[in-house]
Amino acid sequence: MADTYVLVHGAWHTGELLEPVAKHLRSRGHTVHCPTLAGNRPGDDRAAIGLADAARSLLDFLEGEKLENVRLMGHSYGGMVISQVADWAPQRIRRLVYVNGFVPLNGQCLNDMVPPHYKALFDGIAAANRNAVMLPFPIWREVFINDADFALAESSYAKLNPHPYRTFTEPVALRTELAAMQIGKSFVNFQQDVSLPHSMPWHPRLSERLGLFRLSEAPGSHEALFTHPELCAKKIEEAGRD
Amino acid sequence: MADTYVLVHGAWHTGELLEPVAKHLRSRGHTVHCPTLAGNRPGDDRAAIGLADAARSLLDFLEGEKLENVRLMGHSYGGMVISQVADWAPQRIRRLVYVNGFVPLNGQCLNDMVPPHYKALFDGIAAANRNAVMLPFPIWREVFINDADFALAESSYAKLNPHPYRTFTEPVALRTELAAMQIGKSFVNFQQDVSLPHSMPWHPRLSERLGLFRLSEAPGSHEALFTHPELCAKKIEEAGRD
Amino acid sequence: MADTYVLVHGAWHTGELLEPVAKHLRSRGHTVHCPTLAGNRPGDDRAAIGLADAARSLLDFLEGEKLENVRLMGHSYGGMVISQVADWAPQRIRRLVYVNGFVPLNGQCLNDMVPPHYKALFDGIAAANRNAVMLPFPIWREVFINDADFALAESSYAKLNPHPYRTFTEPVALRTELAAMQIGKSFVNFQQDVSLPHSMPWHPRLSERLGLFRLSEAPGSHEALFTHPELCAKKIEEAGRD
Repeated sequence: MADTYVLVHGAWHTGELLEPVAKHLRSRGHTVHCPTLAGNRPGDDRAAIGLADAARSLLDFLEGEKLENVRLMGHSYGGMVISQVADWAPQRIRRLVYVNGFVPLNGQCLNDMVPPHYKALFDGIAAANRNAVMLPFPIWREVFINDADFALAESSYAKLNPHPYRTFTEPVALRTELAAMQIGKSFVNFQQDVSLPHSMPWHPRLSERLGLFRLSEAPGSHEALFTHPELCAKKIEEAGRD
Repeated sequence: MADTYVLVHGAWHTGELLEPVAKHLRSRGHTVHCPTLAGNRPGDDRAAIGLADAARSLLDFLEGEKLENVRLMGHSYGGMVISQVADWAPQRIRRLVYVNGFVPLNGQCLNDMVPPHYKALFDGIAAANRNAVMLPFPIWREVFINDADFALAESSYAKLNPHPYRTFTEPVALRTELAAMQIGKSFVNFQQDVSLPHSMPWHPRLSERLGLFRLSEAPGSHEALFTHPELCAKKIEEAGRD
Repeated sequence: MADTYVLVHGAWHTGELLEPVAKHLRSRGHTVHCPTLAGNRPGDDRAAIGLADAARSLLDFLEGEKLENVRLMGHSYGGMVISQVADWAPQRIRRLVYVNGFVPLNGQCLNDMVPPHYKALFDGIAAANRNAVMLPFPIWREVFINDADFALAESSYAKLNPHPYRTFTEPVALRTELAAMQIGKSFVNFQQDVSLPHSMPWHPRLSERLGLFRLSEAPGSHEALFTHPELCAKKIEEAGRD
C-alpha cells in the first residue's frame, strides 16, 4: 500500500534529521515529506516564534503541497504541532501518529506535561538566551539518546539547533479534544525513552488522552530516529497503516 | 519433557482458533487439547449460558478425557473459566497459565475488572441482541489486534462468534482465593496488549492476585495467538513447564 | 575503548558466579574484576557481618588493586554496597551501574525497600538460622529465575550460599544522597524481574533516586547473569560506557 506520510520533527531538530527514517519508509513504497517547522529553520528569530506559528507553517506546507489522506507523524514536541493542525484541518488527515509525542488537552502547553525540574531548567536557559533554548549535553546523552555510543551522542548533538521557547509555553487551542476527534490515532512508544521520567511517562499517561488509539512499541530511546532509523520507520508504518 | 496442555480460548473465540498455537506446542512434544466452551459453540443459545455453564463444560471435558497433571491455559475471558475449574478440581491441575487472562477474586465477575466505558458499551450491545455481544470492528482492530496488518485484522475478525454476555456478569465462586491455591501459577503478558488500557493493566494489576506466580512476557497484542502463534506457544511453554 | 569494570554480586551469590558475564566483557576489551564480598565467602561467620563490613571489603579490594576510573556495577543487594563505597571513595569511580540493584536513600537498609511479606519471611528464616538466610527454592524458581528451565533453576540454586542477614537490616550512611553525587550513574533493568513485584518495581521506583541517570533495559529475569550472560555483559557495557 502506498501511503502519504508527513513526519514532523521534535524540538531542537529539523526535518532533515528525519530523512534516514523517511528513506526506509520510501523504500517500502510510501510518499514521505519531512518539513522543518517555523522556529527551527536557519535564521528564524527564536524570540518571535510560538506554537501557533509553528503549526501554521505545517498547515501551509500541507496546503502548498495539496496533501490529503495524510498519515501525520509528530515526534516529541511535534505532537503539539500535529494536534493543533488536526484541529484546524482534520479533512486532510487520515491518521495521527505520535512517536513519544506530547498529547495535549485543550489549553495545555508543552511545559504543562514535563516535570518541574525541566521547566525550571529551561526557564533559566531561555531567560539568558532571548528565548532560544539549547538542551545541555549531559541531559541529551543520559536521557535522550541513552542507547547510543558516545560518538553518536556527540555527532547527533552537533546537528541540533536552539529551540524557540514560546512553543513550549503557548497553549494549543482545540475546538475538539483529541479523544473525541473522528480520525485514526496511534502512539508509538520507544520503551527506554526516559526523556520524560518513567514515573510520569509518555505512555499511558499521555497516550490515553487519544481515546481509542493503536499502540506500537519497540526498544529504544527518545532518539530512535538517530539510533534505530529502520526500526523507527517500521513502527511508524505499523502505527500509520489502516 | 512431554506435558499435557489444555488451552482455553477467550471471549468471541473458539478452541479451533488456538490450533496454530497448539500445533507448535505439539511439535515440541506436548499433548494439547483446545476445547470450545459452552456458549461459543455453533447453535448455543447465547442468552442461556453463564460463567458456571462455561466452566462446567470445561470440567466435563477434563473428566471425559480423564486428563490429569494438566497445564491449564486461559486466554483473556478464559482466565475466568480456568479459575473456576481450578477451584472445583485442583487435583487435575499441575499449573494454571493465564495469558493476558482475567484473574478474579472470589465473587467478582469479568465486568468488575474492565473500564466503565467497556461495560457501558457491552451493556448496550447485549440489550439490543438478546445477550449475544459482538465486539465492534474498530475496537478489535485498534486495541485487540494492534500488531496485525489490516488483512489479518479483517480475516481474524470474520472468525469470531457472538459471545454470551452472562459469562461477563456472573461472578466466580471460589472456596479458596487464587493466591492461596497450592498449585503452580503463571502469567504470560503480551506487552502491547491494550485491550485493557495500560493505566489499568493486565500485569501487575491482575497478575499479582495469583500470589507467588511466574511471569513471562513477550512483544505482542492481545491476539498474539493470531499474530505470533509460535511465540505464543513458546511463552506458554516457558510459563507452563515445571 | 578498554575500560575497567568491577562487578559486585548480589545476596546469596559470589563473584565467581559473575565470571561468565565478565568473560564477555573481557572479550570486548575491558578489564574486569569480580570480588566476593565479606559475608559471602566460604567460612565467613554469617552472624558477624553487616553492610558496612561488606562495603569495607569492597573498598579494600579497590584500594588493594589500586583501581581508579572504575565502572562499578552492583547487582541487587550489590547496589547497597556500591552506594556505600561511592560515598566513601567517589574519586575512584567513573560511573555506578545498578543492575536491578537497590538504590538506597541515606539511612535506609535493604529491607526498607522490599515488600512486607519478604521481610517477614526472612526474619523468620534468620531467627532460626543464626542470621544465615537461605532463599527458599520455590521463590528462586518462580520469581528470581523465571526465565530458566527447571534444570538451570536447580543447578544455579545449588551454587548459592547462605546470606548474612545483618546486611539487609543495617542502613547505609551517605554524606551525599545518590541523586546529588557528581559521578555518572546508570540503571540496567531486566524487564521480567519480579523478584520485587512489579507493583513496587526496581524501575522507576528505585532507579529514579539516582537523579540524572542512564537507563538500559533488556528482556530477562533477576538472574539474567545465569540465563543470559552475554546479553547481561552487553547491557552493562551500554550502561557503563561514557
